[in-house]
Amino acid sequence: MPGEFGLIAKYFARPTPSAVLGPGDDCALIQPAPGKQLAVTTDMLVAGVHFLPDTDPGRLGWKALAVNLSDLAAMGASPRWVTLAGALPAVDEAWIAKFADGFFACAAEFGVDVIGGDTTRGPLNVCITAIGEVEPGQALRRDGARPGDEIWVSGRPGLAALGLAHLQGQVKLPEPWPRLCVGALEKPRPRVALGQALIGIASAAIDVSDGLLADLGHICERSGCSAALRLVQLPQLRDLTGSGDQHDGALRRIALECQLAGGDDYELVFTASAAQHTQLGRIAALLELPLWCIGEMRENDGSKVTVFDPDDQPVSFDRQGYDHFGQQTA
Amino acid sequence: MPGEFGLIAKYFARPTPSAVLGPGDDCALIQPAPGKQLAVTTDMLVAGVHFLPDTDPGRLGWKALAVNLSDLAAMGASPRWVTLAGALPAVDEAWIAKFADGFFACAAEFGVDVIGGDTTRGPLNVCITAIGEVEPGQALRRDGARPGDEIWVSGRPGLAALGLAHLQGQVKLPEPWPRLCVGALEKPRPRVALGQALIGIASAAIDVSDGLLADLGHICERSGCSAALRLVQLPQLRDLTGSGDQHDGALRRIALECQLAGGDDYELVFTASAAQHTQLGRIAALLELPLWCIGEMRENDGSKVTVFDPDDQPVSFDRQGYDHFGQQTA
Repeated sequence: MPGEFGLIAKYFARPTPSAVLGPGDDCALIQPAPGKQLAVTTDMLVAGVHFLPDTDPGRLGWKALAVNLSDLAAMGASPRWVTLAGALPAVDEAWIAKFADGFFACAAEFGVDVIGGDTTRGPLNVCITAIGEVEPGQALRRDGARPGDEIWVSGRPGLAALGLAHLQGQVKLPEPWPRLCVGALEKPRPRVALGQALIGIASAAIDVSDGLLADLGHICERSGCSAALRLVQLPQLRDLTGSGDQHDGALRRIALECQLAGGDDYELVFTASAAQHTQLGRIAALLELPLWCIGEMRENDGSKVTVFDPDDQPVSFDRQGYDHFGQQTA
Repeated sequence: MPGEFGLIAKYFARPTPSAVLGPGDDCALIQPAPGKQLAVTTDMLVAGVHFLPDTDPGRLGWKALAVNLSDLAAMGASPRWVTLAGALPAVDEAWIAKFADGFFACAAEFGVDVIGGDTTRGPLNVCITAIGEVEPGQALRRDGARPGDEIWVSGRPGLAALGLAHLQGQVKLPEPWPRLCVGALEKPRPRVALGQALIGIASAAIDVSDGLLADLGHICERSGCSAALRLVQLPQLRDLTGSGDQHDGALRRIALECQLAGGDDYELVFTASAAQHTQLGRIAALLELPLWCIGEMRENDGSKVTVFDPDDQPVSFDRQGYDHFGQQTA
């Protein structure tokens, strides 16, 4: 059985063309492009909290990196470099090999080099720091939304939460939704190209990791605005909930809850002035990624996000998103 | 009880004058100085592996950051920015407050800004990524040692391991050693100023985290050399082991083992051509930090480090340092 250093070398030391010096020294060395700012983000994923301990290691490897690249995407940054630290209860080479496969598949797809890391024995835990580049002053922040800006979201938020509910037996999704929703949960695609396309267009952006209401709420908080979100403008899941029988009524409620409060989607929610509406349609077409205008920012009325039903009446929801310490779920 | 975001804001969001954008967005934004390279390192510390679960949280906070700054020191980099991710079994505000105190005391002392982080519920785990700046081509690496170079170490490696042995009741250190050794264990001082002073002088460097033999072995490996380490040239611990009675004989053996194989000291071991000998004496005086010339690099003879006793005879040691997966200690 190889020791710690052997394991790192065997599975994680791959060529790092974008680094001056890759894994194997006290630090990695990188040379940022002249004048660029760096966006830096870190995420820790814990077995039993963020994923089930028996999660497929290849999917975990992909997702662990993807959620960090999603934070870079939400700033409009180009992913460049990542470090990976992990604790494992025991050396399981097959597990490590599969994790590395998923991790490096994601790294290759988004063009990042794994420049360093740390492995140790301990309860299963994966911590990643990702670094991207962005032109000075161009990063998409949470604090730039202004009253009157339109609110947009990419893709179909809620699918990942529906996938989780399906896997946990809380709903039984009709075909072909299980594959779509479980895929969204297990192999999220960070919206890197969208984030970069939004530079100079979006006034604020965030990725949907905790749920649409919660994450849009962060934009409200940082921008000092309120938000009006209109249910009729949300992406419709007609073929999922359209047949109208009683079972579908329950499914429709759960689907709406997942859309508004389900985390783990890694779509982008962003704001832009109405003057950008046409341009955003072009970006959606170019990226082959649906973009939905779901409401508008308002003057701060003391609330964060108000949801309006099809009759333009405000409705209330209890769950505002996932907060690791705020709620007691394991 | 505040939620996750409240906790982060309360204890970890402090001014970050060296960042363009600090905690609170999807990413932090930093602007590296023009032309500089960045040194990046990450370390994960796990309760029960790297520290005892009941470790004083303030000391843990200091040490968690110090060990990362030590990796920057070993590259000769100037510490600038860090991210902090942590898992906690439960919200314990008193614990968090003390941890933050220790962490920010170290950050303030070495001039780094805490630009972002992540907190979650889970088995106690602290993961830090540190970023420093260094002039292109100037970083101290592990691969630059050449046959004939002298081998140097700073301070008195072994004190931390002696402190641990004392705390665990394996030795009873005479006064005033308990305070010195436990202090070295609990509040290590990364040799940041030394690392920077060694730029242009040292041919290779590494910090002593796993033990002198093991870490010097990494220099040998990466530089393609062997090393000769002379026991008589090690820092003497005379007043610790000098009284000559039987108890002191055992203590002397343990002290030597700690010097050669004890981890957690975070001194620097480095190589430099003999022409730098006088200059290194000046640096030691300037920094008020003892530097010991403990041997020399040799042509690669297939071994890594050979230790010579006072009669110039090679001696062998079993423990070459700490390897989280290679040994079974909890």
